[in-house]
Amino acid sequence: MTSKKNIGIVKSKIFKSLNPLKLQSGEILEEYNLIYETYGTLNKKKDNAVLVCHALSGNHHLAGRYSLKDKSPGWWDNLIGPNKPLDTNKFFVIGINNLGGSDGSSGPKSINKQTKKPWGADFPIATVEDWVDSHEALITSLNISKLSAVIGGSLGGMQAIQWAIKFPERLKHAVVIAAAPNLTAQNIAFNEVARQSIITDPDFNKGNYYGKKIQPRRGLRIARMLGHITYLSDDVMGSKFGRKLKHKNYQYTFNTEFEIESYLNYQGDKFAKEFDANTYIRMTKALDYYDPANGKRRNLSKVFKKIKSKFLVISFTSDWRFSPNRSKEIVKALLDNNIDIKYAEITAASGHDAFLMEEPRYHAILQSYFNKML
Amino acid sequence: MTSKKNIGIVKSKIFKSLNPLKLQSGEILEEYNLIYETYGTLNKKKDNAVLVCHALSGNHHLAGRYSLKDKSPGWWDNLIGPNKPLDTNKFFVIGINNLGGSDGSSGPKSINKQTKKPWGADFPIATVEDWVDSHEALITSLNISKLSAVIGGSLGGMQAIQWAIKFPERLKHAVVIAAAPNLTAQNIAFNEVARQSIITDPDFNKGNYYGKKIQPRRGLRIARMLGHITYLSDDVMGSKFGRKLKHKNYQYTFNTEFEIESYLNYQGDKFAKEFDANTYIRMTKALDYYDPANGKRRNLSKVFKKIKSKFLVISFTSDWRFSPNRSKEIVKALLDNNIDIKYAEITAASGHDAFLMEEPRYHAILQSYFNKML
Repeated sequence: MTSKKNIGIVKSKIFKSLNPLKLQSGEILEEYNLIYETYGTLNKKKDNAVLVCHALSGNHHLAGRYSLKDKSPGWWDNLIGPNKPLDTNKFFVIGINNLGGSDGSSGPKSINKQTKKPWGADFPIATVEDWVDSHEALITSLNISKLSAVIGGSLGGMQAIQWAIKFPERLKHAVVIAAAPNLTAQNIAFNEVARQSIITDPDFNKGNYYGKKIQPRRGLRIARMLGHITYLSDDVMGSKFGRKLKHKNYQYTFNTEFEIESYLNYQGDKFAKEFDANTYIRMTKALDYYDPANGKRRNLSKVFKKIKSKFLVISFTSDWRFSPNRSKEIVKALLDNNIDIKYAEITAASGHDAFLMEEPRYHAILQSYFNKML
Repeated sequence: MTSKKNIGIVKSKIFKSLNPLKLQSGEILEEYNLIYETYGTLNKKKDNAVLVCHALSGNHHLAGRYSLKDKSPGWWDNLIGPNKPLDTNKFFVIGINNLGGSDGSSGPKSINKQTKKPWGADFPIATVEDWVDSHEALITSLNISKLSAVIGGSLGGMQAIQWAIKFPERLKHAVVIAAAPNLTAQNIAFNEVARQSIITDPDFNKGNYYGKKIQPRRGLRIARMLGHITYLSDDVMGSKFGRKLKHKNYQYTFNTEFEIESYLNYQGDKFAKEFDANTYIRMTKALDYYDPANGKRRNLSKVFKKIKSKFLVISFTSDWRFSPNRSKEIVKALLDNNIDIKYAEITAASGHDAFLMEEPRYHAILQSYFNKML
């Protein structure tokens, strides 16, 4: 067995589209940029490309580091690299920051050419469908006619589904991890609490805060704390934190008493300094909106009729955000269409977050699936 | 079968204690008031009294109305009244607003005699243990030596447990509904997000906002929205709201798209106008702190050793806040001590909130239990 290596120093690139993009909302983006990264080499046949779609707080920086001093690698560094499950010795891996993001793709933070100011609240809401349409333009610009695979977890998995629905000829495999065919009322409810927390933060200033001294961190912090609860399982929180105290005894103040409180406050503070509030609420909107079967009006099996790619669907037992039952809805609709589908339900304690972790059985399944792909 | 009646017009009373109360925190309340209500008549033997303990957002106003024009009755009006499961033809029912409340008992809103101003943030944190100690003083003042029962749901159930532990000679029955012997890390986490949302609201002003023009509603609103998600089950949210839209189609704005969002925003707005932020964070603290078995250091079975009352424990299948498994921990520790215990797990879709609802099987069990009590 050859040993895993890290990807080393990486650099982002920009794709500039001058073709207008008609969004689901009806609005038109006359031009837009997508920031992206690639790892590995596109082969001569151009048939070894894998597109990795990011979730709520992710971006195009999947793996590697920007400099030798860079403390943290890309968000899926444990999966992507030489001899890693998604092996960059074999595959040409692409990460794209979605529209509405704040890491270099067109979004609320970028300059609106009309006003010469940041778009702020005026940047249109982009959906999963819009993202996939813009991804397709970028993939085409790289002269890739057919992706070997589109892979994503959570909101990223929804993009993989949408690729298979919208561009059936353009991908061989869709790998859908810890995802769902749409959000439940409870999922939407958590998103709405997060959004309200951001939107009602006076520092949010209706989304127009770029260049201001005070940034809207309070609401974003609460949103992230809440998010973290839904990413982890009740059990893993129990075994990791339980009722462990910060001090020997109760202090009877409103400061932190329990370690779980410290953890959440730390995560909230950290995230609120790094992430953009406008992007956060847009990402939750994309989650809410995605519903290829459109409620009761259409049927997921019908929507999947034209799919030509093969599927790998993975869920995690303790994921209560997108539970295994939601993955099974996808599996059922694929089976209804005689699509080549493999499904794995991984026993994992860590909840929704498991898709980002180096769980051995999970990574072994991905490795084996990718190995057979070429 | 005699038909159920409503209780009619009720009036609150005040219990003034001039005896200092030593709190768990070590602080001493030199004197305090408890506002309370009673329904039905205390019999000659004074053995028909039932104390009802309230949960996070409840108070002493259990049943009946304050005037003919009063639009909404007390919070447990479906349970308490003539010929209702807790029958006021037979029982003398008592409701007390807990210390730290804002409905008339001593709390952050009441005047600190030392400063002649509202206590605000300086009002000490009261715990479940402190509440039960103060309840006991009130019950003694009514010349009741032994309560027929102490009953409560959720945080109220914790008070019923504490009564049985602390004053084993003073109650015949403890009725513990949708409760737990302590909070899990996930429970504490949700409470902490709610608290942070209130505490970081600039209008909260460190808890000193009484008499100010602007009241801290933003954070309290978010806290309540979040609370509501945890009171309802995923399933009931799905069947009640699902992905139902407000408008015919998506609007692609940050206004309300889904009915579940409207519902939560409505509930949040309503609550934030009516409830006190200081009280809310204190109630969540009491929940966090209560842990008679004190983590791993003591054992619930040992703590229950001196209990002399009988128990009825009730849980609801879809309650994921205080799941049936948490009730079973209580049951097990009671059985370890050969305590007379009855346990019912009610199949109900509505989650934690089920304890407040007129679920027929649930009310039938309570009715039968109370019928046999006298």
